[in-house]
Amino acid sequence: MSILEQIKTELPWLDDKVAFDLTRGKPSPDQLSMTEKTFSSLAMPFEMDGIDLRNYGTPEGIPSARELGSKILSTPLERTLALDNSSLTIMQQILSCSYHLDFSRSSLSAKSKFLCPVPGYDRHFKLLENFGIQMIPMPFQSDGPDLVSLKELLNEHKDIHGIVCVPRHSNPTGHVYSDQNVREMFSLLKKRSNNLMILWDNAYACHDLKSTESQLPIFGMAEEYDLQDNLFVIGSTSKITLAGSGIAFFSSSQINNNKFIDYRNSLTPGPNKINQGLHVSYFKKVSLEEQMSELRQLLLPKFDLVDGHLSRLKEQGLCNFTSPSGGYFISFDSIQARASDIIKNCGDLGLTLLPIGSCFPYNNDPNNSNIRIAPTCPDLATLDKCLNIFTKVVKKLN
Amino acid sequence: MSILEQIKTELPWLDDKVAFDLTRGKPSPDQLSMTEKTFSSLAMPFEMDGIDLRNYGTPEGIPSARELGSKILSTPLERTLALDNSSLTIMQQILSCSYHLDFSRSSLSAKSKFLCPVPGYDRHFKLLENFGIQMIPMPFQSDGPDLVSLKELLNEHKDIHGIVCVPRHSNPTGHVYSDQNVREMFSLLKKRSNNLMILWDNAYACHDLKSTESQLPIFGMAEEYDLQDNLFVIGSTSKITLAGSGIAFFSSSQINNNKFIDYRNSLTPGPNKINQGLHVSYFKKVSLEEQMSELRQLLLPKFDLVDGHLSRLKEQGLCNFTSPSGGYFISFDSIQARASDIIKNCGDLGLTLLPIGSCFPYNNDPNNSNIRIAPTCPDLATLDKCLNIFTKVVKKLN
Repeated sequence: MSILEQIKTELPWLDDKVAFDLTRGKPSPDQLSMTEKTFSSLAMPFEMDGIDLRNYGTPEGIPSARELGSKILSTPLERTLALDNSSLTIMQQILSCSYHLDFSRSSLSAKSKFLCPVPGYDRHFKLLENFGIQMIPMPFQSDGPDLVSLKELLNEHKDIHGIVCVPRHSNPTGHVYSDQNVREMFSLLKKRSNNLMILWDNAYACHDLKSTESQLPIFGMAEEYDLQDNLFVIGSTSKITLAGSGIAFFSSSQINNNKFIDYRNSLTPGPNKINQGLHVSYFKKVSLEEQMSELRQLLLPKFDLVDGHLSRLKEQGLCNFTSPSGGYFISFDSIQARASDIIKNCGDLGLTLLPIGSCFPYNNDPNNSNIRIAPTCPDLATLDKCLNIFTKVVKKLN
Repeated sequence: MSILEQIKTELPWLDDKVAFDLTRGKPSPDQLSMTEKTFSSLAMPFEMDGIDLRNYGTPEGIPSARELGSKILSTPLERTLALDNSSLTIMQQILSCSYHLDFSRSSLSAKSKFLCPVPGYDRHFKLLENFGIQMIPMPFQSDGPDLVSLKELLNEHKDIHGIVCVPRHSNPTGHVYSDQNVREMFSLLKKRSNNLMILWDNAYACHDLKSTESQLPIFGMAEEYDLQDNLFVIGSTSKITLAGSGIAFFSSSQINNNKFIDYRNSLTPGPNKINQGLHVSYFKKVSLEEQMSELRQLLLPKFDLVDGHLSRLKEQGLCNFTSPSGGYFISFDSIQARASDIIKNCGDLGLTLLPIGSCFPYNNDPNNSNIRIAPTCPDLATLDKCLNIFTKVVKKLN
């Protein structure tokens, strides 16, 4: 009997109609309904902060929305911009601005290299690849990017012009950078500050599910190393309120902000201010803390469920994984180099996982070990079924 | 007595507090209030076309919004995408995709040249300039880009890889391209189709203020010349409903659409579908035709007012201008090369106009003649005051 046939025998509910998906970090309908409840009661705002939200203009975003971004990202209000609906789109514009026009201390070119702690976020890597930027993978240590490797890579390569970081509940590993790690990283990066972009994607800044190490505001630390012109902080409300209909934020030094707004004036007559106003109104009714607390109640059981399944595999020596303290993902590593087989067999049984290597630049997982699990979207019962398929496949293949 | 002092004597209401602005094509508060009336009564849509609008996904836009775009742009529904809030942002992404990745028949580089009928739209030029694309200005004939010049420039230059067109109520000249002009243009461009991007910005597609020549749908004509893979059509609802909070549309051949969606997957998890749903709901309550008809009632008196003032200047041999049949602008040409002086003096009197050369690549107005007048935003009484300042300055300087 083939592995697939064996598993079908052991999981009697598993028929050919099963179509589960753990690929993307999408909020569940439950999460969205929680937000919808308040969102649907909001009056559409047409004026706020003395600004006509209906018209063009206010390229930096409306003050109240900037205040929200400043709170989420722990960045200075006067340096925080509230922009469009996707922080990825903002990243593309940041990279474009550096590539085609330059920031004061960032000038990307087709020769540029970017350091990419791995496993990391697939869309970051695709975005960098699309600019022809050469990506250099580097490992993590327990509390952030691996500093020994960082030092070696900086010695080895001339044209390192950037690094991409998800500093809190890193996608997908869940790493939370310690202040000490950040300071040592900045100390090493300082010598490259003439041309260096630190892309600081704080997408999960307030997405703690369990007690999580606190972090100092990033600009203070950057200033200690005179790296404030190298730091490009982004984030959004996408995984806080409504995915896709949120606000993305940008924060950098004043000189970079001015440059970026000037650049953006060539490519937009301004952000959607009505949507900004809606979010401001939302957070007048529900505090950010209440919102995250309610989301936590929906998300934590899912993470605990995955944790239970993977812990049993880990006890059997079949995988490594670190239970994340927050964020949207769990990173699974097959002890044997079996990730591609696991993905293939799960797919054959109706459970779609990201293709092999998705969390690595150029889709190259050197150990054929990593699989990102995105547990947020399915309901708890479905997630349990997904994990039953997954763990059975892992066991049969080892 | 200086010119400024003379004018102040002649216009007793003109004091130092006057701060008028005819620079940008912004809708007036009246226009926006008209839209607000219906918009404010809409229930926030969270589901439409069987799609959960609250979540990520549907990178091509929701079907009902694509249908709206298809109607506005007269493009085939299956080839029309509904995307974010700004068609300029879409243009930046189209150019980026061509520059960094290529479309099937468009591969921009730092060596590329773009043909730019002038006077044209300042943000188009800034956007192209930011990519390092060399812009070549070219004149208009009465019914579209000047075909003799087009032929000459195509013979003269090797690396012409694009042309940017606003085919209906061109910004700022008001040109409406005739079908014959388009066909002859396409016939000339055809020999460059291996690497050619025809950027077709139909921002004012349904913004007729007076009887306007009808135009055949553009894709049919492009297909006659096998240029469908070279044609990149964009447009938006920005100047139809709420500026800045609208939907931008994109339409090209299927192969280009697929490429563009794939590219966009690296830079956005999808468009704001709730905003798309809102606009679909809006146009269920007010038809596009009714909306444009109501806007016309607010806009036409302003264009007529400008027309009257400029006609008197024209009769005196002081300017050229063509009364537009729609759109958002009027293009003024000083017979004497006095545009910079006119702009300067108006500014000194409290009337801000765009800087000299704004409607030309690299801000270079070779004749020092052109001034774009954006009459939509001020109310009628204020607009009349603006034109009184403007015409007096023109007269005194000539």
